[in-house]
Amino acid sequence: MAKRLSEKVIFETKLFKIKDIDIEFSSGKKVTYQSIEKSPTALIVPITADNKVILIREYFYAIDERQISLPKGRIDEGMDALATANKELQEEIGFKAGKLDKLGVLTIAPGYYTQRTHVFLARDLSESKLPGDEDEEIEVLSTPLDKVDELIESGQITEARVIAALYLARRFLNK
Amino acid sequence: MAKRLSEKVIFETKLFKIKDIDIEFSSGKKVTYQSIEKSPTALIVPITADNKVILIREYFYAIDERQISLPKGRIDEGMDALATANKELQEEIGFKAGKLDKLGVLTIAPGYYTQRTHVFLARDLSESKLPGDEDEEIEVLSTPLDKVDELIESGQITEARVIAALYLARRFLNK
Repeated sequence: MAKRLSEKVIFETKLFKIKDIDIEFSSGKKVTYQSIEKSPTALIVPITADNKVILIREYFYAIDERQISLPKGRIDEGMDALATANKELQEEIGFKAGKLDKLGVLTIAPGYYTQRTHVFLARDLSESKLPGDEDEEIEVLSTPLDKVDELIESGQITEARVIAALYLARRFLNK
Repeated sequence: MAKRLSEKVIFETKLFKIKDIDIEFSSGKKVTYQSIEKSPTALIVPITADNKVILIREYFYAIDERQISLPKGRIDEGMDALATANKELQEEIGFKAGKLDKLGVLTIAPGYYTQRTHVFLARDLSESKLPGDEDEEIEVLSTPLDKVDELIESGQITEARVIAALYLARRFLNK
């Protein structure tokens, strides 16, 4: 199997680091590739007592569009994923969860991107608002969990992590 | 809604560009965020006549692990997504598709990452090999489409785009 020989940071912004990664393949060939490094994220699928999923519609600047997504946020150094999940829920949708189940850990482009996304199912929701750090208003909406396919088909949800998280949530709940 | 005021490239590698994006929010607040820009990708779900999905196991250097994924590759300037999909299939799994259906377009982290992934369902497969550009050997495997959940649950598939593409393929085929 290929192995990493060394790595070094070659560029850094507030959001991410770019590293040179020196790799040796099984063949003996050595190459240097760049990777993007970013803090892990918590992504939450909040489900109400009547089996609706709470979604948010917000502005995504890289694609310059408003899209439907799920609450998520960076897991700060020293914070655990579960505490981050409950903080983001309160900041973004104004609910806290009495019950949080871990659904899995997703990668998004593991060829060159290190980030991992910890996915949680949030239930037993009760109102609890924390001030958020969002610059643009977040619209909160909800839909029956078995109707999210329509939002995916119509192109209102395009984010692979959100689609994967909704799949994981449905699979977990249908077991 | 927020609007983009301007953008400029601040760093560039062979794989991606980093841009400063100046944004003005509805509130009038102006900020500069960084975005990562990368060429679009074609991702293919190849399905055999007996309803198996063909998967690949390969080395992903950013997470330094071998994982199970789907054939994919960059859509070069001037190439269309469909032609790229059929080229990647021949390079990575040694089949070409008589029938390619577009399943959708995914984003992966639209908050700061521009890349779009065009997802195709490939059927009517016949053997046809093109030399690939992979540095490390790709292992080709197949599993019944209704068994992929086990590979996701066991953590052998973690990539959100792959999970989302498998969900889109199953939804398309079950309609």
